[in-house]
Amino acid sequence: MLKLYYAPGTCALASHIALEEAGADYTATRLDFKANQQQSPEYLAINPKGRVPSLETGQGVITETPAILAYIAQTFPKVKLAPLDDPFAFAQVQSFNNYLCATVHVAHAHKGRGYRWATEESSFADMKRMVPKTMAGCFELIEKGMLKGPWAMGEQYTICDSYLYTIELWLEGDGVDVAKLPRVADHMKRMSERPAVRKVMAQ
Amino acid sequence: MLKLYYAPGTCALASHIALEEAGADYTATRLDFKANQQQSPEYLAINPKGRVPSLETGQGVITETPAILAYIAQTFPKVKLAPLDDPFAFAQVQSFNNYLCATVHVAHAHKGRGYRWATEESSFADMKRMVPKTMAGCFELIEKGMLKGPWAMGEQYTICDSYLYTIELWLEGDGVDVAKLPRVADHMKRMSERPAVRKVMAQ
Repeated sequence: MLKLYYAPGTCALASHIALEEAGADYTATRLDFKANQQQSPEYLAINPKGRVPSLETGQGVITETPAILAYIAQTFPKVKLAPLDDPFAFAQVQSFNNYLCATVHVAHAHKGRGYRWATEESSFADMKRMVPKTMAGCFELIEKGMLKGPWAMGEQYTICDSYLYTIELWLEGDGVDVAKLPRVADHMKRMSERPAVRKVMAQ
Repeated sequence: MLKLYYAPGTCALASHIALEEAGADYTATRLDFKANQQQSPEYLAINPKGRVPSLETGQGVITETPAILAYIAQTFPKVKLAPLDDPFAFAQVQSFNNYLCATVHVAHAHKGRGYRWATEESSFADMKRMVPKTMAGCFELIEKGMLKGPWAMGEQYTICDSYLYTIELWLEGDGVDVAKLPRVADHMKRMSERPAVRKVMAQ
């Protein structure tokens, strides 16, 4: 039995949807970020980084979204959530997810988590002002090429899609006009109609 | 024939060392960052993100360090640069590399590339002041648990090691005292003695 630790509105949603798509036998444990539960001694024993998601498996804990997503794809190979038999195609999946993780998510984080990288209120305000521009820049790359359509990697739905959808849900709050990104808007709509996504979002 | 695009002092070193360790047939093409060559139309056609590393393969281009490293491990399986037959162990490798990519490298980038996330000189100075603290925090986690020793994943040298070494080389410039991190210091020394590392560093 897999156990996912998550908080609403975070990137943990990507792994949550992937578990559901895989038909995995799992439980989802919600952390209360307002009570700072992710920094509690109990949770730090699970994930010393104090972040979500964490995935508890029979062998131990996995952290970091791209690692969890690839693990789900590899342990449920029949569902074909990644091209496991082609290292180049698998690398494209990984490259996409790493861009979301290290560039797009990081750009988004400067809106509300500037304290990770600075100390002054003026810096936080400056960072916050730039988020609509940086996020729009990231999604211009996605719209114009990275998102092959209809799914991120083309005809085959993969672990890139739940991750992309998770970040697409942040766009409105980040000041990016999705109406100007027709392929991204189409992707969001397709994702919202998937039974696995509906089930997870209803929780 | 694989073709790596890199610039000195960047995270491309991790892939460069991994190619050498793998015994790959490759060439390394140096980009001139001072001339902003990474933003030239020629290079943007290879990597629209305008960053390094990029790895040209017979099938196309791969970007993002963790994706390139996993690709090298998968395409040179005999060298055993990752535990390819155990999805959980592979996920630990990926988790380690993702942490380096999305947290540690990002913390470091706030020293000289604050313009990615803000516009004011005062914000850049604020970010720069915090780098010794954030990098020390990251490396405390690495020293106290993530780095299993003697190599990142334990007894087996993996694709985590060249990536960790690449970032370890930034520590002095980032104001982190490596003498206070004995396991990290030992890892740096071991890495510096590997023939593949010596060969790449000599270039």
